[in-house]
Amino acid sequence: MLHRTVFFVSDSTGITAGALGKLLEHFPRTNFTQVRLPFTDTLDKIKLAQDAILEATEHDGGRPVVIMSLGNLTLRNTLKESNAYFIDLFSAFIDPLGLELEQTPLTGSGIAHSIMGSSYHDRMEAINYTLNHDDGMTNSGLEEAQVILIGVSRCGKTPTSIYLAMQFGVKAANYPLIPEDFERGTLPEILHKHLDKIFGLTIKAERLHSVRSERRPDSFYASLDNCRKEIATAEELMRHSSITWADSTSRSIEELSAIILQKIRKPAK
Amino acid sequence: MLHRTVFFVSDSTGITAGALGKLLEHFPRTNFTQVRLPFTDTLDKIKLAQDAILEATEHDGGRPVVIMSLGNLTLRNTLKESNAYFIDLFSAFIDPLGLELEQTPLTGSGIAHSIMGSSYHDRMEAINYTLNHDDGMTNSGLEEAQVILIGVSRCGKTPTSIYLAMQFGVKAANYPLIPEDFERGTLPEILHKHLDKIFGLTIKAERLHSVRSERRPDSFYASLDNCRKEIATAEELMRHSSITWADSTSRSIEELSAIILQKIRKPAK
Repeated sequence: MLHRTVFFVSDSTGITAGALGKLLEHFPRTNFTQVRLPFTDTLDKIKLAQDAILEATEHDGGRPVVIMSLGNLTLRNTLKESNAYFIDLFSAFIDPLGLELEQTPLTGSGIAHSIMGSSYHDRMEAINYTLNHDDGMTNSGLEEAQVILIGVSRCGKTPTSIYLAMQFGVKAANYPLIPEDFERGTLPEILHKHLDKIFGLTIKAERLHSVRSERRPDSFYASLDNCRKEIATAEELMRHSSITWADSTSRSIEELSAIILQKIRKPAK
Repeated sequence: MLHRTVFFVSDSTGITAGALGKLLEHFPRTNFTQVRLPFTDTLDKIKLAQDAILEATEHDGGRPVVIMSLGNLTLRNTLKESNAYFIDLFSAFIDPLGLELEQTPLTGSGIAHSIMGSSYHDRMEAINYTLNHDDGMTNSGLEEAQVILIGVSRCGKTPTSIYLAMQFGVKAANYPLIPEDFERGTLPEILHKHLDKIFGLTIKAERLHSVRSERRPDSFYASLDNCRKEIATAEELMRHSSITWADSTSRSIEELSAIILQKIRKPAK
């Protein structure tokens, strides 16, 4: 395995630069150490970053990758005097995009993730909504939901709902399907008028058994047999109400969210 | 205002490409319509994307910005036959990074955000932990926390904790400071042995008054006078225990999280 250090150097949170860190997954034969250096907004802090780059180079036996977002040109150019492989969001993206749009970009720090950002307020409101409508906690306010996730207990509804709210500002309620629903053989009454915004999650029985066993080992609830029956009945209920669903077994909350968004947001016209 | 459409075209979730959408905030004089086209993994879907690009061009009176992440070279090149301003994650980042690392990148779809990703399991565990340790819900397991956020009710502890867990895999508990604590004049007993991992949040009284009034209008709890007193006493408690704190009034959860991470994670050696 190759070892390399990746620095995320930003004059603000470093979150946009950090998101590009996901691209490192395309190089599974390299073992990356990721180091975040947010709020690097003075020459003194740039010097510290340069020291760290030098140390990492010696330690790894190869120059680091530096993903950087620095609005100030002096800071940017000083950092680039180091020997590293630079991915510079300003010179790669923001400046060229400014030429395309024929506009000078703002270069102040913290522009991308401030509370002044265009969607921040909506995202915070969605998080509050989602936390207050987790796990069928309340039936009131469901008309406000943009999506209602349903599925058996522990199939991934909660983290997916929160991701939808936090990342996309989607008000996502979630509602568990429980033994009472299976006995009755219909979806909970309260959901009947919201069928158009319900999305189902399902999961493989073996996986559910393992997840539930962590919480309640050796219980009827966690038994493979009960998991199989709950899943089959839940899928039957969803099929009967023509609800689209996705299997969470091998999908991340990011993947599930992208699938759900496609359903609830129509493509551009 | 200039109008432009921005397409995020990906063969998978489009989340990495979407993260670059934050950079658009650097151009406040352009009004962007953002369109996500995830799972664009066939030639047919590329054609649909091309149609949408054409329509947006006519509608906006200018060519769109296309931020794209397509592993397959044929799909990539076909899309680029459209007239748009392209930001191509593969040709801008992944391929050049492969040259630097002397490794051929994986080009399959869904690599960046699959459950196979290096940190996925930790992040899910952190989310569960954080939801189970929200708002002082339980005193058990606090030794597992990587950070414990404290502060008055409604100062931003919950969304910040969840962001830390979801984005960075940090097990973040949070604990409210309540009237009992203020009367006693000390932090809750249970926190005394965890002082080294406590981080405080504070907020301006006017802002807290407005946030609390949304939930409980005209209550003593929400009154400006009570908010002022709670905040002053909470800050006094934190000062007395030498706890670092940050003001959430004008900071996003992303900014707060970056500040908190700096405190709990030491820079690279």
